Amino acid sequence: MPTEFDLIRRHFSPPTPRTLLAGGDDAALLVPTPGHVTAVSTDMLVEGTHFLPGTDPRRLGHKTLAVNLSDLAAMGARPRWAFLALALPRVDEPWLEAFSAGFLALAAAHGVDLAGGDTTRGPLNLCVTVIGEVMAGNALRRDGAVPGDDVWLSGCTGEAAVGLAALRGAAATVDAIDEARCRARLEQPQPRVSLGVALAGLASAAIDVSDGLVADLCHLANRSACGIDVHWAQLPQSSALTGVDGKRRAAAILAGGDDYELAFTASPANRDAVLAAAQVAGVVVTRIGATVAGPAGVRVLDPRGFDITPAGGGFDHFG
Amino acid sequence: MPTEFDLIRRHFSPPTPRTLLAGGDDAALLVPTPGHVTAVSTDMLVEGTHFLPGTDPRRLGHKTLAVNLSDLAAMGARPRWAFLALALPRVDEPWLEAFSAGFLALAAAHGVDLAGGDTTRGPLNLCVTVIGEVMAGNALRRDGAVPGDDVWLSGCTGEAAVGLAALRGAAATVDAIDEARCRARLEQPQPRVSLGVALAGLASAAIDVSDGLVADLCHLANRSACGIDVHWAQLPQSSALTGVDGKRRAAAILAGGDDYELAFTASPANRDAVLAAAQVAGVVVTRIGATVAGPAGVRVLDPRGFDITPAGGGFDHFG
Repeated sequence: MPTEFDLIRRHFSPPTPRTLLAGGDDAALLVPTPGHVTAVSTDMLVEGTHFLPGTDPRRLGHKTLAVNLSDLAAMGARPRWAFLALALPRVDEPWLEAFSAGFLALAAAHGVDLAGGDTTRGPLNLCVTVIGEVMAGNALRRDGAVPGDDVWLSGCTGEAAVGLAALRGAAATVDAIDEARCRARLEQPQPRVSLGVALAGLASAAIDVSDGLVADLCHLANRSACGIDVHWAQLPQSSALTGVDGKRRAAAILAGGDDYELAFTASPANRDAVLAAAQVAGVVVTRIGATVAGPAGVRVLDPRGFDITPAGGGFDHFG
Repeated sequence: MPTEFDLIRRHFSPPTPRTLLAGGDDAALLVPTPGHVTAVSTDMLVEGTHFLPGTDPRRLGHKTLAVNLSDLAAMGARPRWAFLALALPRVDEPWLEAFSAGFLALAAAHGVDLAGGDTTRGPLNLCVTVIGEVMAGNALRRDGAVPGDDVWLSGCTGEAAVGLAALRGAAATVDAIDEARCRARLEQPQPRVSLGVALAGLASAAIDVSDGLVADLCHLANRSACGIDVHWAQLPQSSALTGVDGKRRAAAILAGGDDYELAFTASPANRDAVLAAAQVAGVVVTRIGATVAGPAGVRVLDPRGFDITPAGGGFDHFG
């Protein structure tokens, strides 16, 4: 029977070139970059709540880190270090090998050191803390939008929600969706790290879209104390969703969740700079609306100006 | 039914004077202290593995943070920020209120800001990440001991193990132990934060004693590539354990676990300085042995020089 220490050595001991001291001590030691502030986010993923039992472990390893990197991207922070605590019901070495391969491949792709963690026995639970850095004053907070800003969205929303419906067996009710693409969006989201870094100091506010587009824009609107008008006709529509009937498609796009795109605001004076930043990052961005003076909240408007905002919309673990 | 956001607002929104941006955004923003390195540790506590079902939630909140602060103390780092991720099987507001009261009281006592976290539904799981700071070059690593160093221990070991035995109903076999004191050591450990800070730059190596004294000294010996001789007669003996029979007392002292003391090494030239640092910190420290050249490992010697090292000794979640 391998010990806890064997497990860590075998599966979670990648090179950590950016870390002064990683693993094997009471704490890791990191050297902060002068002139930068430190961005920290922590997320806990629980089997049965955040992912289905039997989820492919390599994809799960990827996603566990991806959702955290998405949070740092939404701050404009360059990710540097990750810490992984996991509770495992039993030692399943093939599972651990695949999980760590998925996790570490994404970490390596973004220059992130796995600098520490914890391994214990318990119901499957994955808790990641990521630490990034951004120049002081350039961080993308949720509270920086002002009325008259453009509202932008990276990529598109809705595919992951349709992927989840397909995974749950609803595919038969949906015509011609690109199921593989939608499942990949659900299970292997690509965090918008480069875009977030490129937008630091340029966007006025940002949030990562994980609980549904309208719900997350609401958080941004609340923190910035402004309204947001989203124009339905301007929202990017995934070609993978063309076969989905209108009502379900709208729900997926506006309230689907698990998109891990960035929604952000920027002054209209920065339009060209935003497009240039997106091009550098290799990500499509779309102007989907504008911030407005008035009570905090989000309205989705159809081409005639009618309010078609869905009721509810966000995901809440205890709602 | 309160939402996830309500819960966080109600129970986990203390003041955070040392944090640039805490909570309510995609990540927290921290301002590192110039000239310092950042120490980070993460620990996951699982019901049934690390604590018994029905554990008093206020004490559990205290302990959840305490075990992490103990890790930073063992690095000589001053704790600054904590992040708390928790999975809860249900919303139990009295439990949450008590848990957060215990957690936040200890945080306030050590000037630690709860700067962020995550709340989700799942089997009870508490994952804390703590971040501290120590002057570059002064951190207390495990690998800095050299042969001829003194080996020191703060406080005493063994009380928590006896407390756990009492909690499990073994009290009847143990005469006259101070059960309340031993249970408090188990359930409300006091991390040696001030001592760790006072020893930074003074001790040559340090580790926190959480898995049993001999096992943890073994980690230090392995990382420093030296031997450690511990003299049984020099080990501090808790008066609360005088009624425990000899064999059980020795096992508790040498291999008990959950002590959260600091074991550390220092040059004999620093003896007075170590004692002065301990006095400033208000903690008793005892010289229990010395490091020796030779293969890495720990020997416990009786007054005649006989080796009485217990076999095994450490705690391993998958052993």
